[in-house]
Amino acid sequence: MFELLQTDSTSKARRGRLTTAHGVVDTPVFMPVGTQGSVKALDPRELEEMGTQIILANTYHLSIRPGIEIIRGAGGLHRFINWPHPILTDSGGFQVFSLAKIRKIKSHGVEFRSHLDGALLFLGPKEAMEIQRAFGSDIAMVFDECPPHTSTPREFRSAVERTIRWAKECREQPRAPGQLVFGIVQGGAQAALRAECARAIVAMNFDGYAIGGVSVGEPEREIFKAVELTEPFLPADLPRYAMGLGTPAQLVELVARGIDMFDCVLPTRVARNGTAFTNKGTVSVKAGFNKADFRPIEEGCACFACRQFSRAYLRHLLNVNEILGLRMVSVHNSHLYLKLMADIRAHLAAGTFGEFRREFVANYVPSRRVLSARDAER
Amino acid sequence: MFELLQTDSTSKARRGRLTTAHGVVDTPVFMPVGTQGSVKALDPRELEEMGTQIILANTYHLSIRPGIEIIRGAGGLHRFINWPHPILTDSGGFQVFSLAKIRKIKSHGVEFRSHLDGALLFLGPKEAMEIQRAFGSDIAMVFDECPPHTSTPREFRSAVERTIRWAKECREQPRAPGQLVFGIVQGGAQAALRAECARAIVAMNFDGYAIGGVSVGEPEREIFKAVELTEPFLPADLPRYAMGLGTPAQLVELVARGIDMFDCVLPTRVARNGTAFTNKGTVSVKAGFNKADFRPIEEGCACFACRQFSRAYLRHLLNVNEILGLRMVSVHNSHLYLKLMADIRAHLAAGTFGEFRREFVANYVPSRRVLSARDAER
Repeated sequence: MFELLQTDSTSKARRGRLTTAHGVVDTPVFMPVGTQGSVKALDPRELEEMGTQIILANTYHLSIRPGIEIIRGAGGLHRFINWPHPILTDSGGFQVFSLAKIRKIKSHGVEFRSHLDGALLFLGPKEAMEIQRAFGSDIAMVFDECPPHTSTPREFRSAVERTIRWAKECREQPRAPGQLVFGIVQGGAQAALRAECARAIVAMNFDGYAIGGVSVGEPEREIFKAVELTEPFLPADLPRYAMGLGTPAQLVELVARGIDMFDCVLPTRVARNGTAFTNKGTVSVKAGFNKADFRPIEEGCACFACRQFSRAYLRHLLNVNEILGLRMVSVHNSHLYLKLMADIRAHLAAGTFGEFRREFVANYVPSRRVLSARDAER
Repeated sequence: MFELLQTDSTSKARRGRLTTAHGVVDTPVFMPVGTQGSVKALDPRELEEMGTQIILANTYHLSIRPGIEIIRGAGGLHRFINWPHPILTDSGGFQVFSLAKIRKIKSHGVEFRSHLDGALLFLGPKEAMEIQRAFGSDIAMVFDECPPHTSTPREFRSAVERTIRWAKECREQPRAPGQLVFGIVQGGAQAALRAECARAIVAMNFDGYAIGGVSVGEPEREIFKAVELTEPFLPADLPRYAMGLGTPAQLVELVARGIDMFDCVLPTRVARNGTAFTNKGTVSVKAGFNKADFRPIEEGCACFACRQFSRAYLRHLLNVNEILGLRMVSVHNSHLYLKLMADIRAHLAAGTFGEFRREFVANYVPSRRVLSARDAER
């Protein structure tokens, strides 16, 4: 299922190959986020053209709209959204704890009110796995509790205990044919809790392991710390996934810390605000200084947007609220993330990842505003 | 420049070929509307794939944003928007008289306030032609006065007189290399005025002739009447363009009345409200009855949307405000308009247009709501 092809000599970075029911995924990999069954503003052809191997979709959102029966009726999620390649579904745990109004946390799940119409709903390990089975995703995630990074030690502990108990319940549920299930490690930035949670989850023998609770508004050093505290407990021969991260430079650093899989709303999210990623940081395409700049967003970029359009035109489109503007910045940003992962894989294969990492991170200027945009949408 | 290839034996329908600086256009032709330099929600590749030969852009909107200097700096409108095929630019007359707050109609143009920021601007025949020359459009339209269909006979007369005087001024302005200029006939639904205006405009020897004042909220019979009153005065060997029209069935009927060129915001406009055109009328893709309908919008349709997605998925996308939903309905609707014109050309070539017309119009059920949507956006 997972083949570890190579490890880096200068870091914990790894190159691997993950085989799923709908195809092979070369790692490290970035998964564009299609929360509601569509990677925002993009179509499947555009995703294929930019080298997308696998996308993420969300159990919470899709089970509310259009509902499980519609997706089942379509013959599963792949057919419903016309994406014949691998799909990973998040369990909905994150959304229940962040979006919904929780009414009661019970032993087998959470009673909550829909963030849309206030309908009383229940989601727990059994339900989350049943929905993901109906969707037929290639990788299902366990139902966990993801507490905010400002939680007390007591809250972190209770979330870990619940996460472990629920993981066990998830592990016992039936799966769709060929479906992989990944466990999730919680525990904030506390060494003992991360270790305890990781040991318990790994003991359950999942097909891969995710590090959760790492994209919840905390500063970058805490993200890295949580990953560093967890990674040593994860089996080397299975894929590791850091949930909801990050900027391009963070992805490079997380690969260096032994992570294989990523998802993040940033590329499409900031695009809709008129902000583009480049290999040196972010730039406002919408800004006035682009109004007569006839170069592409990033010179040398091979994406559909940069091959066709100038900053001046894209700035005009964003300025007059034309959909093509945010489409094209979404194309550029998503392409940049996917190209970055392809570059990382190539450098790992060539044994030059250490050099690449040093240079990339040194050239990348992070933007505070962009980091805060990450949490606004999931 | 224009070659009349064939005339129909059962109607005034014609098949022709219009040669412009950026390529040949087979008529009858539908021109997707790119008011602000983008056919709403679509990209140039999608337009090419659906067989778009020529698009329309707007002098008023583009001269306000991004402004003439930016487009000149890009090397003209084709390069600015990355559309290497023919472009027709409307003169801005319609927008000045419908969108802007007019301050004063002077003998050489109109002083008005921008609908955006209230800036005091002036547009007349000289300015409109100068802007279209800077844009480098393949076909420039003269600056005319388009009065509402509720105008008094006196107002229609004064609009016709001004339109004639301004057409003469436009005719004398320099042009971009290879640029064609079309005259516009006004006169409401009054026989004498239409005849007078048509005679005067045709006497000026333009490269083609448009029938204006036919998409200003009037009932369908008045549209047909205005066209029938004007067409006999237009030279058979030059292209005729009915501005701002119409539904699919109206296009068929207008072709039968001797019209060669069309533009209309309907296909993209109603798409963004979740309404799709079919060969039998319109259908609400967004409606609840589509929620478990896994057929394409229109069975047998070869558009990108119908080849990829079900009504149920598109309905879901529209329902949760995903951009891909309105993109795909825009693709379908625009494709339907372009395919209809290709079918019309094929039937004209085969000598079966009369039959096709009868059948198409009999099967098409017009929607009142859709007709009123036509005027909401230009």
